[in-house]
Amino acid sequence: MIKTRVVGVGTSIDETVYAIVDVRGNIIAKNSFPTTDFPNANDFITFLSDRIIELVEANGGYESIRSVGISLPSGNFKSGCIEHSPNMSWKGQIPMAAMLRDRLGLAVALGNDAHVRALGEYVFGSAHGLKDFLYINLGHGVGSCIFTNGKAYLGAEGFAGEIGHTCIVPNGRVCGCGMAGCLETYTGSRGIVMTAQELLETDSRPSLMREMVIKTPKDVFECCEKGDELAIETFRRTGEMLGVGLANYASVLNPEAIILAGGIAHAGKWLIEPAQASFEEHVFHNVKGKVKFLTSNLNESERDVLGASALAWNVKEYSLFI
Amino acid sequence: MIKTRVVGVGTSIDETVYAIVDVRGNIIAKNSFPTTDFPNANDFITFLSDRIIELVEANGGYESIRSVGISLPSGNFKSGCIEHSPNMSWKGQIPMAAMLRDRLGLAVALGNDAHVRALGEYVFGSAHGLKDFLYINLGHGVGSCIFTNGKAYLGAEGFAGEIGHTCIVPNGRVCGCGMAGCLETYTGSRGIVMTAQELLETDSRPSLMREMVIKTPKDVFECCEKGDELAIETFRRTGEMLGVGLANYASVLNPEAIILAGGIAHAGKWLIEPAQASFEEHVFHNVKGKVKFLTSNLNESERDVLGASALAWNVKEYSLFI
Repeated sequence: MIKTRVVGVGTSIDETVYAIVDVRGNIIAKNSFPTTDFPNANDFITFLSDRIIELVEANGGYESIRSVGISLPSGNFKSGCIEHSPNMSWKGQIPMAAMLRDRLGLAVALGNDAHVRALGEYVFGSAHGLKDFLYINLGHGVGSCIFTNGKAYLGAEGFAGEIGHTCIVPNGRVCGCGMAGCLETYTGSRGIVMTAQELLETDSRPSLMREMVIKTPKDVFECCEKGDELAIETFRRTGEMLGVGLANYASVLNPEAIILAGGIAHAGKWLIEPAQASFEEHVFHNVKGKVKFLTSNLNESERDVLGASALAWNVKEYSLFI
Repeated sequence: MIKTRVVGVGTSIDETVYAIVDVRGNIIAKNSFPTTDFPNANDFITFLSDRIIELVEANGGYESIRSVGISLPSGNFKSGCIEHSPNMSWKGQIPMAAMLRDRLGLAVALGNDAHVRALGEYVFGSAHGLKDFLYINLGHGVGSCIFTNGKAYLGAEGFAGEIGHTCIVPNGRVCGCGMAGCLETYTGSRGIVMTAQELLETDSRPSLMREMVIKTPKDVFECCEKGDELAIETFRRTGEMLGVGLANYASVLNPEAIILAGGIAHAGKWLIEPAQASFEEHVFHNVKGKVKFLTSNLNESERDVLGASALAWNVKEYSLFI
């Protein structure tokens, strides 16, 4: 029987979505559960594999499934492990791919969220047809994945892509990683909220933001849409910093395009126009005017399982009787 | 006849060296002439090809030569052109590889100096046996080349590697490229001289540098060797900036090693120790403590022709009668 389906699993801090996906990216069946129910990684793998078996048996059977791909924060494709995640409760280095493979008897490929989502964009989304691009995920953190010649650039040990922790302001804002001036402290969600708060303290102009508690970039975005000057200035400053970080990246990597994704990318023109202006100002002349800015066009609820399904095709089929 | 030799050409602003090199990196014969004699690129190619033919005919004949590699500042491997060089007198986009091929009837591969030297280190030097490394050339400019999986990462159009023009100090020193705060303005030779001058103006300590005209980093280095505090502080500050730039690069690219080359790399411990300390302070924790710092071990007078000879093997043999 020709195996034309894979299982894609997308695990975030809050939720784990798992789906059967065919080679064209059609989602045959999908389900989810809260990741937070499993503070222990073994329990998570046991529960996840039981749920996958259930879903597969109810939808075409085990024989139709070629392999499994899973997206995990701090997942490393090269080692198949989740490694020292700052945000997940599973600590240390845990061989999640092998654990899942042993329970399912199927080959399992594992990647971090930026890698898997970039692959999803490459196979099914905005990056289709591009060979050299940067994928930037703007959310709580700022993750990225470099594609060159149609392949993910992973680095010697699979840790490449940490643009969020490149220093753009020497001795700048303190970052959760312990360093200072990281791009993430200005363009991650907490950084944007901090910029809004700093502006409210130092700029006396009236602002809708003064009458509310600014918790997320979405709150700032809503004020932008109502024409609020300080909210617009918040995203302008964020975009300026993002443009510097992306320009440094592009001067070194010479991509065709930068794909912006994640919740903050939805701030649209308020963020992307100043980011692009700052990018063009700070990028080396060889690259100036040549890098396309694109936004992700995958549905946010599906991008992880689609990307993970694309990753699943990257591993050889597994046999228990090799 | 099996062709076991290539011609390697290394062109810098001042001098062009050309040599016959065998597959093991032995230089069979070598000669040179001043690049500055040829303000016109056509005249340069005509003269160079005549000299190559002379050298080849006196040393084993044309039939033994498989192909030619040439290193040029602002050379682009993907296009085979020298492109908008800020430092050479040959302006615009000039198809040097095709021009040389047409005169010699041999396949010609062309690369920029960082690319060619990195390849030289990979095949014959410090990077032998490494697969993922960064090569940094510290000189008048700060050039680099990324190697991944044993291949040079060139980017969509062959312009990758411009680490010298990444911004490390927002609104910092003005760069020759028109931007501000570029790494090159702090760690290139003019930047180092400027740091020494700034220190002499703002720090009242006695210094040997006060009694001389500081023209090059070598002048500063000589004062370091005599224990001069301000000279040592000059390289400490330079190293600190270099460490930030390299850390950003390594957080994104996760290399096994960084190879430092070029005249300034000879400043040895005065530069490399503070650079490495700053690097470890600014690199993301996944990569911390894992990146080896190495220096080039190729002879400076030979590295360009050796690298160019390695590049020559990258092109298919050329036949006039295809």
